[in-house]
Amino acid sequence: MTWYLQEGPENDVVISTRIRLARNLKDVSFPWRLSPVELESVRDRVTSAFRDVVRDMGSERPVIVELNTLGDIESCALAEKRIISRAMLKDTRGKSLLLYPGESDGILVNEEDHLRLYSVGAGLCLFKTAGCVIKCAADMEKRLSFAKSDRLGYLTACPTNTGTGMRASAMLHVPGLIRAGVIKRLADRLTKAGYALRGAEGEGSDAYGDMIQLSNQVTLGVSEEQILTDLDRFVHDVAEEERKARRALYENDPPALEDEIGRAKGKLLFSRLMTTEEAMRLLSLVRLGKELELPEMPSYSTLQELFIGIGEGVLQQAAGKPLDPRNRDEERARRIREALRSSM
Amino acid sequence: MTWYLQEGPENDVVISTRIRLARNLKDVSFPWRLSPVELESVRDRVTSAFRDVVRDMGSERPVIVELNTLGDIESCALAEKRIISRAMLKDTRGKSLLLYPGESDGILVNEEDHLRLYSVGAGLCLFKTAGCVIKCAADMEKRLSFAKSDRLGYLTACPTNTGTGMRASAMLHVPGLIRAGVIKRLADRLTKAGYALRGAEGEGSDAYGDMIQLSNQVTLGVSEEQILTDLDRFVHDVAEEERKARRALYENDPPALEDEIGRAKGKLLFSRLMTTEEAMRLLSLVRLGKELELPEMPSYSTLQELFIGIGEGVLQQAAGKPLDPRNRDEERARRIREALRSSM
Repeated sequence: MTWYLQEGPENDVVISTRIRLARNLKDVSFPWRLSPVELESVRDRVTSAFRDVVRDMGSERPVIVELNTLGDIESCALAEKRIISRAMLKDTRGKSLLLYPGESDGILVNEEDHLRLYSVGAGLCLFKTAGCVIKCAADMEKRLSFAKSDRLGYLTACPTNTGTGMRASAMLHVPGLIRAGVIKRLADRLTKAGYALRGAEGEGSDAYGDMIQLSNQVTLGVSEEQILTDLDRFVHDVAEEERKARRALYENDPPALEDEIGRAKGKLLFSRLMTTEEAMRLLSLVRLGKELELPEMPSYSTLQELFIGIGEGVLQQAAGKPLDPRNRDEERARRIREALRSSM
Repeated sequence: MTWYLQEGPENDVVISTRIRLARNLKDVSFPWRLSPVELESVRDRVTSAFRDVVRDMGSERPVIVELNTLGDIESCALAEKRIISRAMLKDTRGKSLLLYPGESDGILVNEEDHLRLYSVGAGLCLFKTAGCVIKCAADMEKRLSFAKSDRLGYLTACPTNTGTGMRASAMLHVPGLIRAGVIKRLADRLTKAGYALRGAEGEGSDAYGDMIQLSNQVTLGVSEEQILTDLDRFVHDVAEEERKARRALYENDPPALEDEIGRAKGKLLFSRLMTTEEAMRLLSLVRLGKELELPEMPSYSTLQELFIGIGEGVLQQAAGKPLDPRNRDEERARRIREALRSSM
């Protein structure tokens, strides 16, 4: 089952955990130096190894997506689900996406590195998620030789990933900290400690739906264990600050916040037209209601599914056809209405 | 059962019908010329006759309210229910309100005239409502001698009421005409024909909750029958124009209007704080949804009860204590929420 339909530890603040490992084939240049034919050769080698791995797991058929065969709607939907980055869509030659059954783990082929293995889990579950992706990488390493140095560790296209090749991140819902105006201070503190705080859509993006992403910056000279232990502690600290901030926000004037959250729920349940921006803002408020344990709130899994399911790509994919902006606003309102009604 | 808990003819446009008859005691000066002691004497004569009438009807005990014994909250509540005018509260000496069982019919004593008998009905029901109040007046006339001239008819404190002493009015919900911007033109047309169009709270008031009041202006030289027949035709005409206007409004962009109405309903169902102004605006939109036969709308009787039940006087009376503005907003939101939930 895909991660966003599940609930996980610290789910009142932490939406999801994501780990990715960068790996490159030995004796092959990094993707940015390869010709289209060479990229396709890498892609075919990785895909072949992946098929073997999945077959040996005795699993159902994996999903293999060559990005240059995707239409705009499908590409957009994958970006909205945060499986691929929008940057990866700029030049899709030789790039592919290999999805393990369950859709929470996968491998991006020929992005910045030959392989970027990733795993996503609900809530805060750094060690479990890292376990998954490390196991995936080890399975692939049995069939492919990875570029590696005894002194540095795994070699990567960008030196900032060299070493473990690991980037561990947690997506947090922090409406309390955002309203208290302390995000900037928090980001500075984390940067000094070698961690990064970003908006939900990655580097340079705003805090969309009151979500931020915390991740490690250093990959060289530290063990995977150390990265995860440190990040886990930081996430727990930030989560605790967020809980205090939202509790203070609520206790300052309970009816005012209940009113704001109630109205958000009312609009989500009864509107007929809704933009993505408004939906994200209202869903964030309702999630805050759930986190504060107010009565009659939808489940985390419903909210997570909606956060991911209301983008224009996912909407049009679900509708099976292109929709103009007005029809998307109608379709978005309908999906939200139906999902919330069946969840409450 | 009080009128607003019922549904009546043309209820999709006409909220209620109200008829009042002005009557004065023979051989007694009009109220504005009387001393407090004389006013009390009139009040006692009228009250005594009223008790006899109700006793002869074999009804349960009537409600008799001496206005100078009322607290601010009770007075305000009576004005919000449109049983008395706010002007009547300025000097309450010798004034009283006699309510027939059922609370839809009554007599105001020592307002502008010695007696103002009134009856209110749901929807458009001019003849039935006039029948009630004429019967009440006739019963009273058996026990009291009214000032009357063969040539002029009933004599009244203000000459504009002389003759039949009848003012017939209908309260209409006209969001379509208001949005189409044609109210002013309609008011001019009605004025020329001897009728008046006013905001819901009477002369000089705005169209609160998209409601207007149509009433006759002429009482002299026409029969009750003629007043009612003409007004009935005018109300039917205006109702038909309103139906066309709201249908055009809807058909111009169904999702947009459904969105606006749906959001209004969502806010009413889930807010925790609501001012009277916002509540009236949102209730009017939801009533429009009901009138357009959109699905999942509350009943007319629930909407009517709320239109009347969310004023500060009625709210505080129901709460049994004075409430500050913030508490009123909370209590108003709670009442609306509960009434709509039990009606849908």
